[in-house]
Amino acid sequence: MPNPLSICVVEKDAARAKEITEALHQGGWADVTVITDDASLTQTLASTEPDLVLIDLANPRRDTLETLSEASGARQRPVAMFVDESDPELSTAAIQAGVSAYVVGGLSGERIRPVLETAIARFRMMTQMQSELEAAKKALAERKTIDRAKGLLIQAKGLSEDDAYRLMRKAAMDQGKRLIDVAQALVTASELLR
Amino acid sequence: MPNPLSICVVEKDAARAKEITEALHQGGWADVTVITDDASLTQTLASTEPDLVLIDLANPRRDTLETLSEASGARQRPVAMFVDESDPELSTAAIQAGVSAYVVGGLSGERIRPVLETAIARFRMMTQMQSELEAAKKALAERKTIDRAKGLLIQAKGLSEDDAYRLMRKAAMDQGKRLIDVAQALVTASELLR
Repeated sequence: MPNPLSICVVEKDAARAKEITEALHQGGWADVTVITDDASLTQTLASTEPDLVLIDLANPRRDTLETLSEASGARQRPVAMFVDESDPELSTAAIQAGVSAYVVGGLSGERIRPVLETAIARFRMMTQMQSELEAAKKALAERKTIDRAKGLLIQAKGLSEDDAYRLMRKAAMDQGKRLIDVAQALVTASELLR
Repeated sequence: MPNPLSICVVEKDAARAKEITEALHQGGWADVTVITDDASLTQTLASTEPDLVLIDLANPRRDTLETLSEASGARQRPVAMFVDESDPELSTAAIQAGVSAYVVGGLSGERIRPVLETAIARFRMMTQMQSELEAAKKALAERKTIDRAKGLLIQAKGLSEDDAYRLMRKAAMDQGKRLIDVAQALVTASELLR
């Protein structure tokens, strides 16, 4: 069964690019684009929007590795990076840059498929944690605004906490707005009128 | 330079265990414990408290893989798992279980060191994200309690929001407590006195 995901392969060595492409085709990945020049990466990614990126680097320097991770959109899609040699500092840099799989000295045809599968699973887990974190941070920020607005109403109109909340909720419903928007408007207005 | 981290190796095959131990010693890891029996894992981990765990499984089933991930404390320390064969579902299960490196068909002496280095970097990143998430969730929960307490004071004593906050802060300082503890006490008392 053909694998529907599209892959962009970044590989300078033409012979190795051919080998990788053949391994991908054999693994069922039909939609493969090869880039031999790092400089065209951003442009190619923008036009092809691949589901994942496979980067092969002989002996990366830290700046190359970070630039490529960013250019390949390592936080937007799974990026699997194969390098011939590495050290603990480089591994850390790659992983901090969001690379979903960082494989040292292990690029061979039969290993590509499991590495890509693991990269996809890892990417999903990281994305899930990241969105949970963003949701929690957003909830906290909204909570601060809503409570500030509630405090303003309690103080200005002598309402109970519950009544202040209900008043904001009603205003939001009547105006077809979200509670946070009403609260933000109250806070802004109060700062202007102070 | 010897690597100061202690490693626990889980390997049923004695010949392969010897090979892995030698590779680890050559890589500078001197402190290596080998377990050949899964059943003793929990006990050995409790007594040796290794810095990381290396698990080698021939053809894991999903339940074995999850049980071993949990027993090895994959959320408390880096766990690198080598398997001979896998599929996307198993990769996902391993990664969701917290395994820091999941390597398919790639256990060879020279690959152990970079895999462990990558596992350590990955573990640190996951731990960092996890603690950020927990901190955000805790901040949100504490905020809710503090604001509820503030609302109670505003209502009961006709204070402004700022004065209510200052009053709680002062009570916390006078009693050598944290603000959240004072707020929690207010909320609890108010529920009892309602």
